[in-house]
Amino acid sequence: MSTGKLRMGMVGGGEGAFIGEVHRMASRLDGRIELVCGAFSSDEKRSKKSGKALGFPADRVYGSYEEMFKAEAALPEEERMQFVSIVTPNVTHFPVAKAALSKGFHVMSDKPATFTLAEARQLKRLVEKSGLQYGLTHNYTGYPMVKEARDRIQKGKLGDIKKIVVEYPQGWLATDLESTGQKQAGWRTDPARAGISCCMGDIGTHAENLAEYITGLKITEVCADLGTFVPGRKLDDDGNVLLRFEQGAKGVLHASQISVGEENGLNIRVYGTKGGLKWEQAEPNKLTLYHLNQPLQILTPGGNNSWLSKAALHNCRLPAGHPEAFLEAFANLYRNYADCLHARLAGEKSTKLQQDFPGIDDGVRGMAFIETVVKSSQSKQKWLKMPKV
Amino acid sequence: MSTGKLRMGMVGGGEGAFIGEVHRMASRLDGRIELVCGAFSSDEKRSKKSGKALGFPADRVYGSYEEMFKAEAALPEEERMQFVSIVTPNVTHFPVAKAALSKGFHVMSDKPATFTLAEARQLKRLVEKSGLQYGLTHNYTGYPMVKEARDRIQKGKLGDIKKIVVEYPQGWLATDLESTGQKQAGWRTDPARAGISCCMGDIGTHAENLAEYITGLKITEVCADLGTFVPGRKLDDDGNVLLRFEQGAKGVLHASQISVGEENGLNIRVYGTKGGLKWEQAEPNKLTLYHLNQPLQILTPGGNNSWLSKAALHNCRLPAGHPEAFLEAFANLYRNYADCLHARLAGEKSTKLQQDFPGIDDGVRGMAFIETVVKSSQSKQKWLKMPKV
Amino acid sequence: MSTGKLRMGMVGGGEGAFIGEVHRMASRLDGRIELVCGAFSSDEKRSKKSGKALGFPADRVYGSYEEMFKAEAALPEEERMQFVSIVTPNVTHFPVAKAALSKGFHVMSDKPATFTLAEARQLKRLVEKSGLQYGLTHNYTGYPMVKEARDRIQKGKLGDIKKIVVEYPQGWLATDLESTGQKQAGWRTDPARAGISCCMGDIGTHAENLAEYITGLKITEVCADLGTFVPGRKLDDDGNVLLRFEQGAKGVLHASQISVGEENGLNIRVYGTKGGLKWEQAEPNKLTLYHLNQPLQILTPGGNNSWLSKAALHNCRLPAGHPEAFLEAFANLYRNYADCLHARLAGEKSTKLQQDFPGIDDGVRGMAFIETVVKSSQSKQKWLKMPKV
Amino acid sequence: MSTGKLRMGMVGGGEGAFIGEVHRMASRLDGRIELVCGAFSSDEKRSKKSGKALGFPADRVYGSYEEMFKAEAALPEEERMQFVSIVTPNVTHFPVAKAALSKGFHVMSDKPATFTLAEARQLKRLVEKSGLQYGLTHNYTGYPMVKEARDRIQKGKLGDIKKIVVEYPQGWLATDLESTGQKQAGWRTDPARAGISCCMGDIGTHAENLAEYITGLKITEVCADLGTFVPGRKLDDDGNVLLRFEQGAKGVLHASQISVGEENGLNIRVYGTKGGLKWEQAEPNKLTLYHLNQPLQILTPGGNNSWLSKAALHNCRLPAGHPEAFLEAFANLYRNYADCLHARLAGEKSTKLQQDFPGIDDGVRGMAFIETVVKSSQSKQKWLKMPKV
Repeated sequence: MSTGKLRMGMVGGGEGAFIGEVHRMASRLDGRIELVCGAFSSDEKRSKKSGKALGFPADRVYGSYEEMFKAEAALPEEERMQFVSIVTPNVTHFPVAKAALSKGFHVMSDKPATFTLAEARQLKRLVEKSGLQYGLTHNYTGYPMVKEARDRIQKGKLGDIKKIVVEYPQGWLATDLESTGQKQAGWRTDPARAGISCCMGDIGTHAENLAEYITGLKITEVCADLGTFVPGRKLDDDGNVLLRFEQGAKGVLHASQISVGEENGLNIRVYGTKGGLKWEQAEPNKLTLYHLNQPLQILTPGGNNSWLSKAALHNCRLPAGHPEAFLEAFANLYRNYADCLHARLAGEKSTKLQQDFPGIDDGVRGMAFIETVVKSSQSKQKWLKMPKV
Repeated sequence: MSTGKLRMGMVGGGEGAFIGEVHRMASRLDGRIELVCGAFSSDEKRSKKSGKALGFPADRVYGSYEEMFKAEAALPEEERMQFVSIVTPNVTHFPVAKAALSKGFHVMSDKPATFTLAEARQLKRLVEKSGLQYGLTHNYTGYPMVKEARDRIQKGKLGDIKKIVVEYPQGWLATDLESTGQKQAGWRTDPARAGISCCMGDIGTHAENLAEYITGLKITEVCADLGTFVPGRKLDDDGNVLLRFEQGAKGVLHASQISVGEENGLNIRVYGTKGGLKWEQAEPNKLTLYHLNQPLQILTPGGNNSWLSKAALHNCRLPAGHPEAFLEAFANLYRNYADCLHARLAGEKSTKLQQDFPGIDDGVRGMAFIETVVKSSQSKQKWLKMPKV
Repeated sequence: MSTGKLRMGMVGGGEGAFIGEVHRMASRLDGRIELVCGAFSSDEKRSKKSGKALGFPADRVYGSYEEMFKAEAALPEEERMQFVSIVTPNVTHFPVAKAALSKGFHVMSDKPATFTLAEARQLKRLVEKSGLQYGLTHNYTGYPMVKEARDRIQKGKLGDIKKIVVEYPQGWLATDLESTGQKQAGWRTDPARAGISCCMGDIGTHAENLAEYITGLKITEVCADLGTFVPGRKLDDDGNVLLRFEQGAKGVLHASQISVGEENGLNIRVYGTKGGLKWEQAEPNKLTLYHLNQPLQILTPGGNNSWLSKAALHNCRLPAGHPEAFLEAFANLYRNYADCLHARLAGEKSTKLQQDFPGIDDGVRGMAFIETVVKSSQSKQKWLKMPKV
Repeated sequence: MSTGKLRMGMVGGGEGAFIGEVHRMASRLDGRIELVCGAFSSDEKRSKKSGKALGFPADRVYGSYEEMFKAEAALPEEERMQFVSIVTPNVTHFPVAKAALSKGFHVMSDKPATFTLAEARQLKRLVEKSGLQYGLTHNYTGYPMVKEARDRIQKGKLGDIKKIVVEYPQGWLATDLESTGQKQAGWRTDPARAGISCCMGDIGTHAENLAEYITGLKITEVCADLGTFVPGRKLDDDGNVLLRFEQGAKGVLHASQISVGEENGLNIRVYGTKGGLKWEQAEPNKLTLYHLNQPLQILTPGGNNSWLSKAALHNCRLPAGHPEAFLEAFANLYRNYADCLHARLAGEKSTKLQQDFPGIDDGVRGMAFIETVVKSSQSKQKWLKMPKV
């Protein structure tokens, strides 16, 4: 049955991890990818234990990513893993990706791409030099209604974009959760593992990515006010940012991990000269369209909703009214990534729709955003320019 | 990697089918089941073609279910399929299930369980006699918030149940879609393949199942008015039913396939002496709770929402705010089914939470409902009793 | 300042009443009507007390409606009341209206029009004979979005109407509130004051009226199951009804006063061959429009929403986004009634839009509905015909 | 019937005006105020014409506010107007208020209070010196659910406030409407009549007022980026502002008149250490409450919702489920204003709940906000302090 499935390895994602299991489910959903090996923890014993719990044969569970890349590279070509999924805390994204590329493995990485902007730029050069395929799981861009939103803006249906409001409120870090031993909170609030930002690095960058993806406009300047509301916490758990975009658009981005009651409220509104739109991750199957001098419309996904763009339809699995959600959107990244890799391995061309998954450029933009908003927040100067990438 | 995975075969679900692919994705999501063989069409050539497209080796793609059951039964025990997923049009659900049971295969069947109530009763006897595991994909009961609703009612939080309103509006058959060659519309409106009802058989029975599942109350009497609004159509495409339940509760069930604009609007409201609740499939991650003399609450799923019941949490994969939807709910049936089968094969006991998937009793109830509402609709007598099952 | 204001008297609406104050606010909002006198209670002392509390001069507060009509008729024409607003419990609607008409006063009555269908028919004859203006406060038809809904159906935008679902859930009588001395609950559950029905008479009839008003189709047959869920209560507090309409449309009407948590949830959905629509009283400023093969739209009221019908715009006071609600809808009935009466008194013609307020025909239909559903609920016969009116 | 009614005069509000009619309806709703005279336009002929159309006797319609104040002051005390409602464009708010106070008339003014901050400070001194009653129609604070929100925060139910997001998107000025002769657009975009800001002066200040009112926290610093998106327009039609509040809270305020499709979308979210809340003007009868470690609740107004605060209940007229909206909220300001004035005139004490309407301090804060955000937008300095008022 594994005929035609791509063989994936995984770094990270051992017991207690959240995102590792998400990557496993997302990669499995469409039957195009098979997870064949893993280094599930930097601790060898825990890696072995996790691998066993996941049902892997012992010889494909490794004690470290270095060991895994070496051993897999030594396997027969038709057996060894073809790409690696990196689901570790931020600090190791870069070294793992670098090592994978150096051994000829394609890469699918959790975001942010790296620990620093400098690393991200270096990684971009490595990816380009290697000629290997690199994907980055800015998963919220995988939703069909996000694709539809982007398509409509690309086609000019909103006119010239003037205003963008993107929000990412959460409340799960409203208390000192990291002191309770909760693993997710632990590393995300730890500068040594998360980097220079918690809130902006973890979720602000998703908001930035979503805004740039949907509108096709780059942020050019930011003015940020980050905050740390839980006493003793070392990194930001909240932030408000004024944005300026290419072509004169203006906007606001705010993200929070201390907004009690907010679960995972990423949402975006975009307004142009001819129309506007609104999308919310919590109800991802609705896209509200505003029109100058006409009533609003609400679009929903579904293969039989013939008025949807090809981009949206390509990323739907079910007929209208059968809601798809977080895992399906995440799986769309894996599916498009896999389709492209299949095509590449078969010496064929992939389509534009298949190529539509986040990559290293999104990674560099994301790191540039994180570094710039952190710097801006500490500055008395009103506007800081986003570095060119 | 297939260590520990249950081996599933599939009957039906070839090209152009909707529900077959749903079963495949749902069974795959949690990595507990592997599809190893199939008879994807009653037409041998189409079965082979579909099997090839799906990436199956030729020797595990069969021209008929009879052939498949025979051949698989002859394979070594550690290789052959362990259960069959039946995803054909209604007319063949019974003979396929019967044949599978007779060869010792466990069964997971799409609904309705059979073509007639008589068949359903017969199937119940066969299942009981065989001692094999039978599941029925009344998939809407797989949603976490449906589990929560049921749990609250079981625990008496709504008091005595008085009123139940369950609706299932769709609009996809508002025109004569079957004349266009659309496969789904074709068989569902054809008495020879769908049975005595289209709307009630296809979706009314989901509504009936959901109402009985959530409230724990059986429907005792019905008074139905079915309608056929598209000229030339032979079966009902709409229906309104007054309901009486055990313990004096009353209610309404209405379903429609001609309600233009409705996508897949299954929803339910239940009111008791102490509270009420509302759930809608289109926004499955909300459960509205009404309380006597207190403001309403809205519950959402998510592993970190500690106030949820064990039943709800058992059927969540993600933290709060990361929406799960149709496929995840469907997969919950497969996961629970698989957990029970794993336990059984290992000689262990499964838990109550694992055993919580629809089975043959739901199948008999469903067929009883279909037959009774069709009879009621043709009757001048106001109330018809639901047969005891 | 009272130049040009119509002079209104009121029967009922003393202290502790709910609907009397609603009528007062609604009649006052647009500055076209002045309340000049009242018989606020059938108890003379209470009437006087209420009148004083409301700021009326003692000589215009009466001890009974008979006294009021007599005294007012004796006043100079430019001083005496011109029409009476009847806001008493159901049992006296008819005698008060009859007396008013006999003295030459125009009538605005709370619903239901009378205590029995026979009275309603008699009242219709009296109104016709008198040539006076009669209005009935089926106030939910006063909402701009209800007007829009009706207009669209009249213009054929939904095609032929096939299915109608109208609901009116409330929860305020889920407990034995009448035993606590609550005035509203007291008379509504008392057959001597409310008539043969509580739930259907109080709110079921609003639902019936709304459905017939919006669709322009009359109900031809009903099949009802009323229930009384609070022990000791003498009248229905819940009811479910199958409906058949002219031109083959079918539907469901259900109303409840024991649906805990529901506040005042009147809502309607209508589906035709070309489209559908949905409106809910709790969010009255939204009208959802469904279209065959196009995404749904949501309409909102507002003078600047140029795509709205004249009927909707005529009943808006504010620009878009400035919500109008219950009192404004109620006031639309009074405003249209007053415009017509002004025109009539000035010997001018009123417009179709002004004439659009409920009248005696709605009253007769309402009483016919109440009597038929009560009879149906007690009958073993499935369908009862609505009497012709 | 005018016994006990306060006599109001009006300046502005002639034909074509929007807000004048709003003030008239709002002041009329509760039957406590009678409009007795007006200077409806600065153009004498138009004033007379408007007055006649409104049904006023000629001798109480004046050609200018100066004339009105003089003439009314000369009338017998029991006949002359007692307070003036000022509904002119911004530029004349101050001189009219000043003149009214100087003649001993109480004042109810549309916002913003004045044309400049200096005027506002001067007006504050005049009000204090006069001892007369001054109200300012920051009408959105009149909604029952806004009162509830404030009450909960005052009582500490949200804990310490950390984050505030307040938005006021509109779309009606997305095109060059002022060139079409539309009266509202004309003066609001004209610096000579509107002042130094269009968007921030017209609606940003409502957002500022709402945020400070609900949270009880003053804005201490702002960092603003205002924009003008319609070519040729002289004032801002959009703006984004970072906020810092007393006690360390942070926030965002953004307002827009060019966000196509947005009608009048004022909304606010507040998050504290123990809970959060959300309110939207478009659906004003919902208040969402978030709680740490408990599911969310949604509150609705209504006299019978016993869990509501006295502050909310004081500002409701109807039972639950009977929506009140813009005019009722507006009328709450007039009602409270009138209750206080009645009490004052009767030598009695008004209650805290009656005193809860916006006054001159809100006016000064509003002008300070407008001037500070305009200055901030032009500055390279990141943070500007709000002046103490």
